[in-house]
Amino acid sequence: MGKKNKDFVEKITAMEDDFAQWYTDVVKQAQMVDYGAVRGTMIIKPYGFAIWENIKNELDRRFKETGHQNVYFPLFIPESLLQKEKDHIEGFAPEVAWVTHGGDEELAERLVVRPTSEVLFGEYYAKNIHSYRDLPMLYNQWANVVRWEKTTRPFLRTSEFLWQEGHTCHADQQDAEEETKRMLEIYAEICEKYLAIPLIKGRKTEKEKFAGADYTLTIESLMHDGKALQSGTSHYLGTGFADAFNINYSDKDGETKLVHTTSWGMSTRIIGGLIMMHGDNRGLVVPPKIAPIQAMIVPIAQHKEGVLDKAYELRDQLKDLIRVDIDASDKMPGWKFNEYEMKGIPVRIEMGPKDMEKEQVVLARRDTGEKEFVALTDLHTRLPKLLEEIQQNLFDKALVHREEMTTVAKNLEEFQKVLDEKGGFIKAMWCGDQACEEKIKEDCQATSRCIPFEQEEVSDSCVCCGKKAKELVYWAKAY
Amino acid sequence: MGKKNKDFVEKITAMEDDFAQWYTDVVKQAQMVDYGAVRGTMIIKPYGFAIWENIKNELDRRFKETGHQNVYFPLFIPESLLQKEKDHIEGFAPEVAWVTHGGDEELAERLVVRPTSEVLFGEYYAKNIHSYRDLPMLYNQWANVVRWEKTTRPFLRTSEFLWQEGHTCHADQQDAEEETKRMLEIYAEICEKYLAIPLIKGRKTEKEKFAGADYTLTIESLMHDGKALQSGTSHYLGTGFADAFNINYSDKDGETKLVHTTSWGMSTRIIGGLIMMHGDNRGLVVPPKIAPIQAMIVPIAQHKEGVLDKAYELRDQLKDLIRVDIDASDKMPGWKFNEYEMKGIPVRIEMGPKDMEKEQVVLARRDTGEKEFVALTDLHTRLPKLLEEIQQNLFDKALVHREEMTTVAKNLEEFQKVLDEKGGFIKAMWCGDQACEEKIKEDCQATSRCIPFEQEEVSDSCVCCGKKAKELVYWAKAY
Repeated sequence: MGKKNKDFVEKITAMEDDFAQWYTDVVKQAQMVDYGAVRGTMIIKPYGFAIWENIKNELDRRFKETGHQNVYFPLFIPESLLQKEKDHIEGFAPEVAWVTHGGDEELAERLVVRPTSEVLFGEYYAKNIHSYRDLPMLYNQWANVVRWEKTTRPFLRTSEFLWQEGHTCHADQQDAEEETKRMLEIYAEICEKYLAIPLIKGRKTEKEKFAGADYTLTIESLMHDGKALQSGTSHYLGTGFADAFNINYSDKDGETKLVHTTSWGMSTRIIGGLIMMHGDNRGLVVPPKIAPIQAMIVPIAQHKEGVLDKAYELRDQLKDLIRVDIDASDKMPGWKFNEYEMKGIPVRIEMGPKDMEKEQVVLARRDTGEKEFVALTDLHTRLPKLLEEIQQNLFDKALVHREEMTTVAKNLEEFQKVLDEKGGFIKAMWCGDQACEEKIKEDCQATSRCIPFEQEEVSDSCVCCGKKAKELVYWAKAY
Repeated sequence: MGKKNKDFVEKITAMEDDFAQWYTDVVKQAQMVDYGAVRGTMIIKPYGFAIWENIKNELDRRFKETGHQNVYFPLFIPESLLQKEKDHIEGFAPEVAWVTHGGDEELAERLVVRPTSEVLFGEYYAKNIHSYRDLPMLYNQWANVVRWEKTTRPFLRTSEFLWQEGHTCHADQQDAEEETKRMLEIYAEICEKYLAIPLIKGRKTEKEKFAGADYTLTIESLMHDGKALQSGTSHYLGTGFADAFNINYSDKDGETKLVHTTSWGMSTRIIGGLIMMHGDNRGLVVPPKIAPIQAMIVPIAQHKEGVLDKAYELRDQLKDLIRVDIDASDKMPGWKFNEYEMKGIPVRIEMGPKDMEKEQVVLARRDTGEKEFVALTDLHTRLPKLLEEIQQNLFDKALVHREEMTTVAKNLEEFQKVLDEKGGFIKAMWCGDQACEEKIKEDCQATSRCIPFEQEEVSDSCVCCGKKAKELVYWAKAY
């Protein structure tokens, strides 16, 4: 054991000392990502990608159940096409990557590597929608997108990331608005039930909405360090893109009308949220419902006769019940414990010669560190139940944390004091004037996260200007 | 019915008249693709993408069963990194897209949009492999790649396409060569058993192998028009990339050794093969095992009482058995027949008032056009069996076609005559000299497709130079 072993998990920075460094240490040590050769890009390693695949599968199933079809649109957008919707190009132009040459030749027109694909879908829909019979047209694609960001961090902000983008066309406003809401609810379900991330659902302000949208719905979550993360957005685009791209249809009476469009997306960014929501100073904590491995069997004294055979037998008995794996490598059990704690595997199953004698195993929970002895005959009922308890506990803990970190502020002094002392969400009334929103951003570095669907009147005057309040807003420093 | 209806399937060019135009008509009319805004790119529409998803799922399952892990590597490759492996950069440089600007700034180093990712994986493996315990390392990614092609056709050759690329590292040559073969066999299984595409398996010549490989294994198929299609390749890269990227490991005795690497890929190109293999003058024909919809219910006289109810009931009864859908739109049955024939849906289930009385349906096969009456009580056994028969028939027909279109040639005169008169595969002996291969390509526009695993001695002298033959080669004009 004197020799340095590359498999051994290195110590990570404590989150209280340096949260950003803790995050970086965890994503590296838990084998989630590696840095790409190009600034701001990431390599998603098998463990990180397996988590993304689980999220993807859950989302994709729900998209299909709600009538959406998957498609694939090209990576490149001609510069002239991106310019068709004015707000849209203004929002994205500063952060796109440009292709200027193909082989040895300079291109006649520069190409944008897609930062999002509204314009490509817009042009397609204009050509392919003719009649009310064609509506709604409900497309989704799983794709990579590129945004040339100045400051990057794995998952949270990368020059290239993976996502899905839904783009839909509807005959009227009501149908499109229902779609916008429906997709937000699907994102919310995945976050709350699978990722154990409690959410505030609401609408973005005019200032924070998507470039080109009528309005943007959002789900906002609060990370361990008290900063907010936008976790998924769904945009009602009204008839703006339809007008810019001439997407119209004949209704039942033969009248020509513009369609109403939506778009919505969730990205690998949510994995950053997962890490910052549940992780601790021993590493990652992955909620069971999304964990690539829900339980890891670690044989104890595996050189003793029968231990490994019994451990493999156990793996085979459990593998149709849960996602289980076994580590029978020649590493010491303690090292294995560290590695799977770092990776946040929900349950460790320990089994040694004494357990074999007693026909039991030890179950160790990653979230609380608690251990329990379980008879082999009870494992089939106890394990799934334990996974449920862990899932629920992670959600409950996150909710308690958010509630502790949510504070009402009635004026800017209180607002600043909360930010200085604890951070978190600030619930404060707003007059609706963008000037106040901008002043808060400038003075306090906090942004409006959303106008929550569940409104309360925590005061009757705007937290910034003191004039009559219009609505409650959640504010926070954000990723 | 006088009014032009956009849903109605337009007439397509007969394949005998103009095969290329027939192909273009089919991919458009069957709703597989649309053209992208950038030259040579394609939009994969829902129906085309659903076929790709089915292929992808079958491949992905087998990759995982054989121990491979999915990952995601970045889209961009720095120019300097691509140049590390000399043969590799020479092979790809003429056909890559270059990113030169990010936002408003010119980049210090140009970036390549990946045409393939050997160099990125190479650099990663060099950093992440240390000991024999780390081997084999078996990665795969599903991704888009870009190759700036001059002449493009949907699926067959596009500036951007979707594929998977496997990249693996092994301790020794034997293990790497076994992997190379294993992955080729997986491709072969998908092609033969799912896509009903009969194959010739073999090795590429030195001239035709992948840029940077020791050798390339390939599966080659013969399209309806007598041209060959390379349908999947698996490369044994030896220690060339390991040497260029310094990918080494300590073996059990502490000695430092280079790893042996492989790479292998299958792309959306195979969908082009599927179309050209089974399609006919009524459109696409999709083998049941890969068909997004295996049977389409078309109600007859659906305005009559009970017909639609009964049709939906039938759909619900069948949906756990096969992939079934129903078209209850107000289009005429004849139009629906045309549409689903164009889309190549294997079976049409017709059901009208008379059938209801007799408690039967009509099953119409897409491949042969044959119809049969089947009692509702027999449908659960007959339908799956019929789908199997169709699957087998498509494969058998394709095999007969390939055999009819495979001809032995013993000298260049015979060789040219076959190409002029019928095309197809030419089996001919080769001396192994690249000069002969190049002469054949120049004089006859046919390339060596592969040196088949199953060797025969159809003559004892080279088809080109007449000197002593070394091995049998399949030649053809190819896509």
